[in-house]
Amino acid sequence: MIAVLKQGTTPEQTEHLIKWLKNMSLDVHMSQGKEVTILGLVGDTSRVDIELLKSLEIVATVKRVSEPFKQANRKFHPNDSVISCGDVKIGGGNFAMIAGPCSVESEEQIIEVAQAVKAAGADILRGGAFKPRTSPYAFQGLKDQGIKLLLEAKKATGMPIITEIMNIRTLELFEDVDIIQVGARNMQNFDLLQELGKTKKPILLKRGLANTLQELLMSAEYIMSEGNENIILCERGIRTYETYTRNTLDLSAIPVLHELSHLPVVIDPSHATGRAALVPPMAVAAAAAGADGIMVEIHNNPACAMCDGAQSLTPEQFNELNQRVQKVREVIK
Amino acid sequence: MIAVLKQGTTPEQTEHLIKWLKNMSLDVHMSQGKEVTILGLVGDTSRVDIELLKSLEIVATVKRVSEPFKQANRKFHPNDSVISCGDVKIGGGNFAMIAGPCSVESEEQIIEVAQAVKAAGADILRGGAFKPRTSPYAFQGLKDQGIKLLLEAKKATGMPIITEIMNIRTLELFEDVDIIQVGARNMQNFDLLQELGKTKKPILLKRGLANTLQELLMSAEYIMSEGNENIILCERGIRTYETYTRNTLDLSAIPVLHELSHLPVVIDPSHATGRAALVPPMAVAAAAAGADGIMVEIHNNPACAMCDGAQSLTPEQFNELNQRVQKVREVIK
Amino acid sequence: MIAVLKQGTTPEQTEHLIKWLKNMSLDVHMSQGKEVTILGLVGDTSRVDIELLKSLEIVATVKRVSEPFKQANRKFHPNDSVISCGDVKIGGGNFAMIAGPCSVESEEQIIEVAQAVKAAGADILRGGAFKPRTSPYAFQGLKDQGIKLLLEAKKATGMPIITEIMNIRTLELFEDVDIIQVGARNMQNFDLLQELGKTKKPILLKRGLANTLQELLMSAEYIMSEGNENIILCERGIRTYETYTRNTLDLSAIPVLHELSHLPVVIDPSHATGRAALVPPMAVAAAAAGADGIMVEIHNNPACAMCDGAQSLTPEQFNELNQRVQKVREVIK
Amino acid sequence: MIAVLKQGTTPEQTEHLIKWLKNMSLDVHMSQGKEVTILGLVGDTSRVDIELLKSLEIVATVKRVSEPFKQANRKFHPNDSVISCGDVKIGGGNFAMIAGPCSVESEEQIIEVAQAVKAAGADILRGGAFKPRTSPYAFQGLKDQGIKLLLEAKKATGMPIITEIMNIRTLELFEDVDIIQVGARNMQNFDLLQELGKTKKPILLKRGLANTLQELLMSAEYIMSEGNENIILCERGIRTYETYTRNTLDLSAIPVLHELSHLPVVIDPSHATGRAALVPPMAVAAAAAGADGIMVEIHNNPACAMCDGAQSLTPEQFNELNQRVQKVREVIK
Repeated sequence: MIAVLKQGTTPEQTEHLIKWLKNMSLDVHMSQGKEVTILGLVGDTSRVDIELLKSLEIVATVKRVSEPFKQANRKFHPNDSVISCGDVKIGGGNFAMIAGPCSVESEEQIIEVAQAVKAAGADILRGGAFKPRTSPYAFQGLKDQGIKLLLEAKKATGMPIITEIMNIRTLELFEDVDIIQVGARNMQNFDLLQELGKTKKPILLKRGLANTLQELLMSAEYIMSEGNENIILCERGIRTYETYTRNTLDLSAIPVLHELSHLPVVIDPSHATGRAALVPPMAVAAAAAGADGIMVEIHNNPACAMCDGAQSLTPEQFNELNQRVQKVREVIK
Repeated sequence: MIAVLKQGTTPEQTEHLIKWLKNMSLDVHMSQGKEVTILGLVGDTSRVDIELLKSLEIVATVKRVSEPFKQANRKFHPNDSVISCGDVKIGGGNFAMIAGPCSVESEEQIIEVAQAVKAAGADILRGGAFKPRTSPYAFQGLKDQGIKLLLEAKKATGMPIITEIMNIRTLELFEDVDIIQVGARNMQNFDLLQELGKTKKPILLKRGLANTLQELLMSAEYIMSEGNENIILCERGIRTYETYTRNTLDLSAIPVLHELSHLPVVIDPSHATGRAALVPPMAVAAAAAGADGIMVEIHNNPACAMCDGAQSLTPEQFNELNQRVQKVREVIK
Repeated sequence: MIAVLKQGTTPEQTEHLIKWLKNMSLDVHMSQGKEVTILGLVGDTSRVDIELLKSLEIVATVKRVSEPFKQANRKFHPNDSVISCGDVKIGGGNFAMIAGPCSVESEEQIIEVAQAVKAAGADILRGGAFKPRTSPYAFQGLKDQGIKLLLEAKKATGMPIITEIMNIRTLELFEDVDIIQVGARNMQNFDLLQELGKTKKPILLKRGLANTLQELLMSAEYIMSEGNENIILCERGIRTYETYTRNTLDLSAIPVLHELSHLPVVIDPSHATGRAALVPPMAVAAAAAGADGIMVEIHNNPACAMCDGAQSLTPEQFNELNQRVQKVREVIK
Repeated sequence: MIAVLKQGTTPEQTEHLIKWLKNMSLDVHMSQGKEVTILGLVGDTSRVDIELLKSLEIVATVKRVSEPFKQANRKFHPNDSVISCGDVKIGGGNFAMIAGPCSVESEEQIIEVAQAVKAAGADILRGGAFKPRTSPYAFQGLKDQGIKLLLEAKKATGMPIITEIMNIRTLELFEDVDIIQVGARNMQNFDLLQELGKTKKPILLKRGLANTLQELLMSAEYIMSEGNENIILCERGIRTYETYTRNTLDLSAIPVLHELSHLPVVIDPSHATGRAALVPPMAVAAAAAGADGIMVEIHNNPACAMCDGAQSLTPEQFNELNQRVQKVREVIK
């Protein structure tokens, strides 16, 4: 870590700061330049509060030379991580297509969708049982009953399942769930992350609405620092001023995360765009940019003609999307 | 709630949609115009998934005519709410100055700061015991020990105390805490909100980094819908592209929240700006805009000359800030 | 256009508003509901100031039913526009690869790069002569001399050229330029747009750093409303809070703009990401999402080893990128 | 300027870079640390392309130690600048209240508003003659006729006037205008800025919708570097994801700009919030935060009852706002 001191800093102030830094068990190398004084901090700088250091009056700038994440860092783990979920693998050249309804609604619905997406080439079944909703009055999911229905669908199709956890006290319900999803709103629910770190379950960690890629990796680090290395990163759109799409899908997250980390990266174009017509082009683009998986919402309601324009695709549309994604993966290898 | 259908929607599609809406126990009034068809939805529209409705292919736009929050809504509760914390009141013309250190570090520190801020006019003592940190390797606060020290400071000075909860399983530690703070990262930790709604404790709810004012009110509604009406809203800066300040303090939140809700509004200029020199002008501006309270960080480390430029003020700077705030409150009455 | 009036609006206020609207030559259809009153405005609503209307105290919401852009609108021009630049076509299934250096630096440089990118498959040569720079002290380009050198490169290679205009008073210098670029900072320089609308030159219009897609189309409309229909839209990244990339590339702009408009869409991954390593995956993703062209920065400085990590690719890297792009275009047809 | 090189940079690469930097007439001081190599660049670093330097593969980070703006920099000009506009002064303790209609509509209107705002305490009359509009079909102002009417109002009341320029070719129309406004959309229209730098007119420069405070100061520098030092900076709200207000007013811009620069800072709460009810609290807050002036929109249409809720205040509301502002200025002195 490098701290650059402002011009006009007195020797006493500099000495003071160095003493304070050494108290944190850091070695400090001073380099006195014409214009500025530079302090090189060596040691376990992951404990240094960079915001506090930056805000000191005598400090012009602070810069980490090494990233603050370790276990998620590609530097210390050059090979791609491969996450196994049942027979399915994600990362290191293994691509997973995750599909299913937004919410689990009934046994009939989830089994029908599961069979349809499996037939269309999906590897993993998604479905919401606990639903985070902005309003306390909105439908919050079938909860434990929803998980039971997902497990029925798993049994019926043999597909691994993924569903979201919102509260660590419900962890035991997830025993037979293959991948636990942490939603965007909980990306910095550090207590939840640490508890999930004590399990061995694969965790799909969604980027928060206004979180940087480095913050996403720091949240992965929270889980990994407790012993669970089975992390799948997920980009699902960030909040910007643009209103035509629900969020702005940041596909550059794929090569950036691959550069910084060995963890696989999955893209969720359904939540990112909020509109079915935009899901296929964004899914294909994600595959072209090197994503390790794609997660899309599918509905199976032929009676509900009006659902077709919403964020969910029909199984037929998904089938076509999947074929294009596979073709693109073939040519970019 | 109003739904405007697109030109070219067929009568069958319209009928389909109306049937679907009626299934949600809504009355639907159709108004057929030259260019468009408009559906007026009457009933408990708080259960309608506005995002889903918007995303239907035949729907041009959806607009709530009534806000989705009820208990937090000024329409149904025209008088300002006044929240009592010990002898201190917030809201309805009562102004609270909340001050204290970022983190509780030791008994000596917290008692010294508590006495200093009390002497300088503070009403409530703040201090972090559980600290949400981006990095798992950073100092996470003294935790339960920190709360004990805060309670010592409360005993020594008679001031009510406020501190942050990060995890509902620690709730019992907060029994003698006067105000429980929910941090920005947990604003949409709905499970935590609901559990806090089952207590009677005053809750200071911070706006998330990228959350709208309506989402803040919906999170207040989560708490209130469980029975706890003692909510204090807090603006602490939102995330924008500007890098000179840590966040962008949105002071228009004060008149907007006062217009929409009866709940008191407190401003935290320390976290918002991240720099001590900006805290006094923003605190005075907050008072001028009608805030019901201000929460600032104070340190008491005369030996640590370098701390002066950081986000915390000295007790002397706080004293001066407080006097200006009180004068401004006087003239804007 | 639909205006929804608030509950509690008096008949006098409603009458007032209707009179005001009729004065703007609009027909007003009133629909009185239980909860609300809705006004349907028919006529040339493109002249209505939607912001003013929205801000009236009695108005709950205003929604355009028809988009405010006409000539750029796919509704009134269902077929893709095809823009011709010399022998090259863009749009309607025609894809253009635009490549060249950030700035024109010398005759030797621009001709060497031009020949290299042509050999690697580029269709159009880009190069900056007038450079918009944040600082008045930074290099502002070779200006008219830069355009002369671009014309030399055009002569030497036969490639059409594109370069940016910053000031309408320099228009005559662009007589032999094939495509005139309007940069992101000038997207709402309405005077410049209107003057370019009086020419017949193809215009590549870049989206502003914080402009919505609708605003981009309204700026295209400024040019088209003066008679020039040869517009190419360009997404080049928007400004967000993320700092790892220079901007956030919004690839969903491709399907959204194609849905709303008949104009071709080109992606600039070099400016969007600011880093060479991210350009190839984003270029391939853009092709997969259906872009009509890609514009990338290329340098030819084998002596300058350090340039390789910057935002510019070498001709060899461009050659490889181009082959992947073409393969992806093949499979998504 | 400091450049930190990445670990693993070879001596050849470092030498290459140093040679390149020295070619730009910079002195380079190298400091070899354990973890990193740091280059201190001395000389006229305002010409260095910081983006390019940052993007080099071997460079970990680059930081300016001195700000890139010189003439706008408080370091080289410690005293507040005072800008004179007729008899009115702005800055250095002089406060200006600027008021008037959004657009000049007729002689009767502008003279009536001018007299009303003068009576209520305004110092300077504002009014739009050239109006930048998102749509080419919207009313673009009375243009030269509008300026004539403003000059009539100036004659009738003796107030200095401010109005916006959109195009340097209309400069001669502004001969008797006291302050020329550069709108947010033109903040980086560098050609316009440079031409205005050749005049001696006071320029009110508005911050762009998505521009940083440093970029605002760089745009001021564009004007000043051509010889015109009469610059007034103006914050008018930035674009964020919040939709309740038109923009997010960043009042921390006041102390930040005062810290970095000697130029006066004016706040425009009307455009920032877009709603009349929010203008008075934000105007008073701006005064409390130390603004050198406030610019508000006033209308005079008693017949138009519906205008009251829009972004413009009545003269009576303005009178009350002005009294509160003056009282707050008194107590914060």
